[in-house]
Amino acid sequence: MAQLLPKALLAVIDELGRLPGVGVRTAERYAYYLLRSNTRNADELAKAIAGLHSGVKTCPVTFALIDASEDISPLYSGADRNKKLVAVVEEPLDIIALERTGQYHGTYHVLGGAISPIDGIGPEQLHVPELLKRLKDDEVEEVIIATNASVEGESTAIFMQRQIEQTKLPVTVSRLARGIPVGVDLEYADQITLTHALEGRRKLS
Amino acid sequence: MAQLLPKALLAVIDELGRLPGVGVRTAERYAYYLLRSNTRNADELAKAIAGLHSGVKTCPVTFALIDASEDISPLYSGADRNKKLVAVVEEPLDIIALERTGQYHGTYHVLGGAISPIDGIGPEQLHVPELLKRLKDDEVEEVIIATNASVEGESTAIFMQRQIEQTKLPVTVSRLARGIPVGVDLEYADQITLTHALEGRRKLS
Repeated sequence: MAQLLPKALLAVIDELGRLPGVGVRTAERYAYYLLRSNTRNADELAKAIAGLHSGVKTCPVTFALIDASEDISPLYSGADRNKKLVAVVEEPLDIIALERTGQYHGTYHVLGGAISPIDGIGPEQLHVPELLKRLKDDEVEEVIIATNASVEGESTAIFMQRQIEQTKLPVTVSRLARGIPVGVDLEYADQITLTHALEGRRKLS
Repeated sequence: MAQLLPKALLAVIDELGRLPGVGVRTAERYAYYLLRSNTRNADELAKAIAGLHSGVKTCPVTFALIDASEDISPLYSGADRNKKLVAVVEEPLDIIALERTGQYHGTYHVLGGAISPIDGIGPEQLHVPELLKRLKDDEVEEVIIATNASVEGESTAIFMQRQIEQTKLPVTVSRLARGIPVGVDLEYADQITLTHALEGRRKLS
């Protein structure tokens, strides 16, 4: 079959097709939309994507995503944030979900994933030592483990609990309440469910 | 609520959110994927999108999308294409669907949409005069109207049929068959489709 579409369009379809959950038909629809809309729209998207990596860095304390111009996450350095309370999440976007509840004023710690032997992710790939250091440095009183309600998230929670207990520091370890439906990723949970989950968090014995 | 995400990431989420059918959550997922994958992936997508408009133009005869370096669609100029047979489609991407069948060796004519008063698209916005010119220039024998099976597609088909008849040229006008799609159970077919399927029934030889 001969080439049916212009190379420039095929290139965009190919590249968009790499996005998670985007098949050929969807990529075609996106690319065609960009082609039909004015050049400025496409250029702005291109510019934004080109500036993505250089404009974003990781907070050295919390591992949240921050502006390249910032030194530390404002969700850690902010005067209104309680450093003695740390929510441990898997991914940076999980922070948005918790912040949207408006109920949480502690700080965050992004693990950078969950323990998943099948994906080759072991505890050593997660930002665990950095958290244990924070427990001492910030005299943390409570760690809320807010990993996903998945098998990997649960395993990671248990692992984290043990790690924290082994420090012998006077830290309470809690876990978001069962209110999040099992199998649903944190970033997709609605605000009310997340608020309930925050309020009903239970102490791990 | 303070800014939760780096500006560079928000910019990508905003721009991706303009794509058809992409909400905030999906845009966040796409943007985060681009951020996690290596810089080269993001750069290649940015480059492809930036080169989209300059790399694509419209064929002056068929209004199909072609490389900016080409003069005319290879689906028209190709030696293996029968210029006396023209399939009239609404959008350039419809051509791919027909080409994928591998059964069609005629040429195409892209109308550039369908008549839709609600969207402010009248016949004068479609590439109709150019088609009528082709009927004469290429001594076209058959026009297959392959507009969508929507209200707008049907109206456009009827309009096109009349326009072609008014030329008094010896051109056969046909329409893609309506019927039950392959793999669909009879009980799930809608009444209009079934009516079409009954009307268009074919004698088994």
